[in-house]
Amino acid sequence: MAKKSVVARLAARGIALPAEPSKPVGNYVSVKRVGRWLYVSGHGPWPDGKPMIGKLGSVGGPSIQEGYEAARQVGLGVLRSIEAAVGLDNISQLVKTLGMVNCVAEFGEQPKVIDGFSDLMAAAFGNQRGVGTRSAVGMMSLPFGIMVEVECTFRLKRKASK
Amino acid sequence: MAKKSVVARLAARGIALPAEPSKPVGNYVSVKRVGRWLYVSGHGPWPDGKPMIGKLGSVGGPSIQEGYEAARQVGLGVLRSIEAAVGLDNISQLVKTLGMVNCVAEFGEQPKVIDGFSDLMAAAFGNQRGVGTRSAVGMMSLPFGIMVEVECTFRLKRKASK
Amino acid sequence: MAKKSVVARLAARGIALPAEPSKPVGNYVSVKRVGRWLYVSGHGPWPDGKPMIGKLGSVGGPSIQEGYEAARQVGLGVLRSIEAAVGLDNISQLVKTLGMVNCVAEFGEQPKVIDGFSDLMAAAFGNQRGVGTRSAVGMMSLPFGIMVEVECTFRLKRKASK
Repeated sequence: MAKKSVVARLAARGIALPAEPSKPVGNYVSVKRVGRWLYVSGHGPWPDGKPMIGKLGSVGGPSIQEGYEAARQVGLGVLRSIEAAVGLDNISQLVKTLGMVNCVAEFGEQPKVIDGFSDLMAAAFGNQRGVGTRSAVGMMSLPFGIMVEVECTFRLKRKASK
Repeated sequence: MAKKSVVARLAARGIALPAEPSKPVGNYVSVKRVGRWLYVSGHGPWPDGKPMIGKLGSVGGPSIQEGYEAARQVGLGVLRSIEAAVGLDNISQLVKTLGMVNCVAEFGEQPKVIDGFSDLMAAAFGNQRGVGTRSAVGMMSLPFGIMVEVECTFRLKRKASK
Repeated sequence: MAKKSVVARLAARGIALPAEPSKPVGNYVSVKRVGRWLYVSGHGPWPDGKPMIGKLGSVGGPSIQEGYEAARQVGLGVLRSIEAAVGLDNISQLVKTLGMVNCVAEFGEQPKVIDGFSDLMAAAFGNQRGVGTRSAVGMMSLPFGIMVEVECTFRLKRKASK
């Protein structure tokens, strides 16, 4: 009996990946594989090709729940990039996440925001392999004014087929 | 003649580790081991369970010396997490540190602050193995308003016993 | 027929490395090698020993082009540090870049700034091996008020001779 694929596991929860992976916005690549390591560039939240912008904690700015949703969208983009580059079923585990929140100086709820990303990774890869180390911190600004940017590192299975 | 343990080496300098390791404040783990790599999540300064908060360089804010002490407290928490996860005596060397200082735009003394963390690592693991690469930078804000957050990566000994 | 050295390839484009590698400004090392990994500390732009300071997007502050040039200077310093530590011809590829821009809250052109670093790496190591994953983000402040700081990770060739 075959194990469910990551895409099937997400689909069972009603989660679909974006149709296309995002493109780098400068002189870098979205994903780089080195041996069994998979490095993933900083991704932003671009559902349907439109950036989710705003500064957490600012007057009239996005709520924590909106920030959480932005971080979840970042996660969907990261999964899509991995699927395109090496295939999601070749991931062994999430190792490290740097979650960067565009916010004001008084904002201190970065962990709740970045959980939008982390909860999605746990849904995709499980509560052991999908949960890694993390920092969640507040940035002065992010490219194009996006709410959240996340970079991360994964470990591939020994026999990554692709 | 046995080599002194890291805990004994610190004790000889009057340095004691916190009684308990800190708990993650979101969906992540404090420490993750992958082969001989040990990834450590962003830690904050929580002596006796209370956060050291404040913005370096702000009017009436913490001094550089207080920031240094906060970074040292972060280091004690990191050492405690490592001791709980794999045992400090299994560390071969510190590889990389990202030191993040909660500060104002005009503040430029991040290196002096993060030395509070780095000096402790050197005391624990020695001036070769306890000194790694580093960035020390200024953040818009950090979770709960803490003064300093540090994430880091270590290398384990070939025969890490635990 | 010998392959051109990295220094020769840069010289052919009129690019010269700094005479001396920069020194750490705290308790860390500029570069650390672990097996085939080469970790590089955060470097700033110090052409001729003078820091390039300023806040991108501020009134009267540096232009994007000046930020790009600062990021390029950071790259020259990184190359110089690598040359001193292990030799540039032992680099297999650039894996990961964290590009940090000192800027105001409204600034969103971090990718254009950090391309100054990335374009230099591509010139030094080629459009495949010199292009890695990347995040380019906006910081509250950086040490001494420098415009840009970059930390990065490289992979060494299997038989790194030095």
